[in-house]
Amino acid sequence: MQWTIYLSGEIHTDWREQIINRCEALNLPVIFTSSVTEHEASDSAGDVLGAESNSFWRDHKSAKVNAIRIKTLIQQCDLAIIRFGEKYKQWNAAFDAGYCAALSKPYITLHDEKIIHPLKEVDASAMAWATRPGQIVEIISYTVLNK
Amino acid sequence: MQWTIYLSGEIHTDWREQIINRCEALNLPVIFTSSVTEHEASDSAGDVLGAESNSFWRDHKSAKVNAIRIKTLIQQCDLAIIRFGEKYKQWNAAFDAGYCAALSKPYITLHDEKIIHPLKEVDASAMAWATRPGQIVEIISYTVLNK
Amino acid sequence: MQWTIYLSGEIHTDWREQIINRCEALNLPVIFTSSVTEHEASDSAGDVLGAESNSFWRDHKSAKVNAIRIKTLIQQCDLAIIRFGEKYKQWNAAFDAGYCAALSKPYITLHDEKIIHPLKEVDASAMAWATRPGQIVEIISYTVLNK
Amino acid sequence: MQWTIYLSGEIHTDWREQIINRCEALNLPVIFTSSVTEHEASDSAGDVLGAESNSFWRDHKSAKVNAIRIKTLIQQCDLAIIRFGEKYKQWNAAFDAGYCAALSKPYITLHDEKIIHPLKEVDASAMAWATRPGQIVEIISYTVLNK
Amino acid sequence: MQWTIYLSGEIHTDWREQIINRCEALNLPVIFTSSVTEHEASDSAGDVLGAESNSFWRDHKSAKVNAIRIKTLIQQCDLAIIRFGEKYKQWNAAFDAGYCAALSKPYITLHDEKIIHPLKEVDASAMAWATRPGQIVEIISYTVLNK
Amino acid sequence: MQWTIYLSGEIHTDWREQIINRCEALNLPVIFTSSVTEHEASDSAGDVLGAESNSFWRDHKSAKVNAIRIKTLIQQCDLAIIRFGEKYKQWNAAFDAGYCAALSKPYITLHDEKIIHPLKEVDASAMAWATRPGQIVEIISYTVLNK
Amino acid sequence: MQWTIYLSGEIHTDWREQIINRCEALNLPVIFTSSVTEHEASDSAGDVLGAESNSFWRDHKSAKVNAIRIKTLIQQCDLAIIRFGEKYKQWNAAFDAGYCAALSKPYITLHDEKIIHPLKEVDASAMAWATRPGQIVEIISYTVLNK
Amino acid sequence: MQWTIYLSGEIHTDWREQIINRCEALNLPVIFTSSVTEHEASDSAGDVLGAESNSFWRDHKSAKVNAIRIKTLIQQCDLAIIRFGEKYKQWNAAFDAGYCAALSKPYITLHDEKIIHPLKEVDASAMAWATRPGQIVEIISYTVLNK
Repeated sequence: MQWTIYLSGEIHTDWREQIINRCEALNLPVIFTSSVTEHEASDSAGDVLGAESNSFWRDHKSAKVNAIRIKTLIQQCDLAIIRFGEKYKQWNAAFDAGYCAALSKPYITLHDEKIIHPLKEVDASAMAWATRPGQIVEIISYTVLNK
Repeated sequence: MQWTIYLSGEIHTDWREQIINRCEALNLPVIFTSSVTEHEASDSAGDVLGAESNSFWRDHKSAKVNAIRIKTLIQQCDLAIIRFGEKYKQWNAAFDAGYCAALSKPYITLHDEKIIHPLKEVDASAMAWATRPGQIVEIISYTVLNK
Repeated sequence: MQWTIYLSGEIHTDWREQIINRCEALNLPVIFTSSVTEHEASDSAGDVLGAESNSFWRDHKSAKVNAIRIKTLIQQCDLAIIRFGEKYKQWNAAFDAGYCAALSKPYITLHDEKIIHPLKEVDASAMAWATRPGQIVEIISYTVLNK
Repeated sequence: MQWTIYLSGEIHTDWREQIINRCEALNLPVIFTSSVTEHEASDSAGDVLGAESNSFWRDHKSAKVNAIRIKTLIQQCDLAIIRFGEKYKQWNAAFDAGYCAALSKPYITLHDEKIIHPLKEVDASAMAWATRPGQIVEIISYTVLNK
Repeated sequence: MQWTIYLSGEIHTDWREQIINRCEALNLPVIFTSSVTEHEASDSAGDVLGAESNSFWRDHKSAKVNAIRIKTLIQQCDLAIIRFGEKYKQWNAAFDAGYCAALSKPYITLHDEKIIHPLKEVDASAMAWATRPGQIVEIISYTVLNK
Repeated sequence: MQWTIYLSGEIHTDWREQIINRCEALNLPVIFTSSVTEHEASDSAGDVLGAESNSFWRDHKSAKVNAIRIKTLIQQCDLAIIRFGEKYKQWNAAFDAGYCAALSKPYITLHDEKIIHPLKEVDASAMAWATRPGQIVEIISYTVLNK
Repeated sequence: MQWTIYLSGEIHTDWREQIINRCEALNLPVIFTSSVTEHEASDSAGDVLGAESNSFWRDHKSAKVNAIRIKTLIQQCDLAIIRFGEKYKQWNAAFDAGYCAALSKPYITLHDEKIIHPLKEVDASAMAWATRPGQIVEIISYTVLNK
Repeated sequence: MQWTIYLSGEIHTDWREQIINRCEALNLPVIFTSSVTEHEASDSAGDVLGAESNSFWRDHKSAKVNAIRIKTLIQQCDLAIIRFGEKYKQWNAAFDAGYCAALSKPYITLHDEKIIHPLKEVDASAMAWATRPGQIVEIISYTVLNK
């Protein structure tokens, strides 16, 4: 069996690459999926549908176009990893966690100890909390390999 | 028909009271529900189950006890209002929004114009975005009264 | 048992009143629900959230505010009556029919013989097709009374 | 991952071919599905089951045979494109949109600016509104390619 | 708590009355529901919608009108009793049993020993098999009374 | 796309073979599934679990073993064909129809005109009624081929 | 709002009464439900359907009759308390926990520290673990009262 | 069609190997899945996330990591075999059975006659009860081969 793992959250560090590369090196039977993680591309995803003078609507159109991809990939994943970094609001990551919880999709959070308290509701529905990508790789490896 | 409306998010301003009081004044057929909004009580909800030296586990136990109430009330509501204030991470509010979205529960966001961009994914699944409690009251009034 | 019946579609004739009045005269244990059927009020349902220069967004905001009511009431009904009149596109009525079909909510269509052909997909998922409100009343009466 | 995209609505212009051909030219990992779009074949789909003197029943039988294909393909798609043209009632397209909405299937509408108002409820549940097939191709391309 | 019990199947003997009367005599907190059990009324349920020369369509219209009531009441019941008598095909009773099974609605069959073999698939998904109404009453009484 | 079609009902005539052979001759992209249709094997499916003196329990065990296969295959099919022949009670076929109806699985009935009346509830939820295997093949061919 | 709380597990100590009495003393808006907890009555629940020489079938019939009550009450509860005592296998309590988990029904376990290890999978899906009925009462009180 | 069969329960005897080997010898189209069945590895599955002084939390973390695998594999299986041995509490096996029951996943129990009574609720929702792996193999073979 091949596992599909959705990587949600922070886009300004290389945590995705770390996880993907190590899992590839281990030859694990996993496919990784993500939203579009290029900031500019993501913010302008709806621009093709016409320019907007009002920034709310520009954001709205792009967010909805991105949601086609995000919701479909979350619904099709077997496991999600949700990363909270040090900067930005990252409400979309918490939104994804709530979305997973309601669909009974298992997810693991990846964040620093400093933000335990504000993430307690998100962690309460998670299957695990990790602080380093290496831990995520070990759990994935344990989960997907048939011992 | 009586409508049940769940009020999620910010607990440090009186937005809940404003909405509840005005809806009562209008005699609307609505019941409001919420998580436990008293900060201290909420943080210590799990303490009765035994003390924890590790703050992660203390938070974890309390967050899970709170989740009994929160998830049940969200599942039973007809509409949720999700408020993002100026301070704090408020990841639990975004989590509730994602939870509503996955369950196809309609929700309205209530937040300032300044945070449109970081909330674009949350707003993209909302039925409306309001900036003042009075707007929420008008929409509730419009929705629940049989014209 | 009390039955909840959602009345969808045409708002420019008195078919709703005919059905409601006759059912009341018969003392049937039914509650009728509807979207907001006053044209002006419905079109401006979102205006309280701020003016829009672009008519697409004005319509969008109002349609979403109306959807809070419509989707909730359809989900809570036991039966829907969907009326197609002689004028206007009435795509919202067909949309409601598709929504009912996917949720396995039984619905009855009410329309003239002239539009059988364009409505064949909508009728194909309906439990019955009627041409006059009186027929609807007879079917409701038959269905809700415990003979 | 391969995406399955259902194309619903207007059958008298070449919008389907435009989208399919451009996506093929771009080598996108997509499969397109549709109802049977040949008008005559669709209208007579049920004739093999026996002739009907009453046109309602002829339409009914054909519409139900077509529904086997339509409902199955919508349930299996990842995204639907719903096209409203200039002519005909096209209630089946609006019905498909409602069906998608209730199943939480993302859909994009494709229609002219002139019919924004009557389509506002259909657009309110859509992930995007486009006016030209080329925009649809760009959104598909953005969504299915792993950037 | 009040229990709702749907009584499906044979309409030519008084098994329904026996169960209902004894449960009433015991003052059990139960409500009984049924399809319309008057044969003539049931067969002509769709006649109000217009006469049909073809008996298939007459039956079809009536069966669909009856299905509004039947499917709604099965979906709302807590338990179904499904009775197979000595005469007639009674495929509708077996249909109701399959419908209950797919919805995880518990049901009890009530039939003679002689028809065990042809009913084995129906009994395989049942919670119990009884041969006399008195047994049904005892099980209902046991189930709904809080000992 | 490949379609999976479940063939339910009568096991004493060659209707399954007729449909399968003609579809194969037409090279249609379909897979056919069925319960175990060999009468003896089916009736003794549970015997391996131990002999039973009571025929009810022997039937019960076999019917449950068969149900593993039947329910799984119905849940995985895209379309079911449900055949009622001239003999036997065939309650299992009607049970399968009810099971399909509750799961929103489309099904087509295949039966003689003589039994229209007792099958009216089963036909009321069907997508089509055919009297000859050749009609079924034409509908399958129409449905699965991309015209 | 009134909360419905299902009490599952051990029937040989008075933990149910302790919880019920204290909640009543506190006047909490809760209704408690349970399986039939009288051992003899529960074991003989199916005897009315006929004697069985084989103890497996006697148990089977009684367990199924009890399941009508148990599954219905679990599906209708807002919260379950699942108690593991010192004696007996109590596989039915663990079964109820798994049933709750799959339905996303929140549950709290109530058991001694000595059996933490064998109950780790059951606790992993629980919202809380308590060792004394008094803790359960405090959590219920916290959850159902609107502070 | 290939069948996926989940093997749950006892890890200290070779029942899994017996079933797998015989099915392989018979060349059956089946894939077997399981939780991680190596005791030490399973108990320490969460250790990579950080040491815990409290044994409850160590167990909790490991059980949750294991649950990622277990719940996903149960949701994806077509049939589960649930084995209860002579030793240990095996509450996780009963939990898996309840989980299967709520999801309508068919399962077969495999246990000795001595524990019929305490397993009656678990057996009541099972499709079959076997006492030897060889019986399981026969039922699998019967079920997956297209006779």
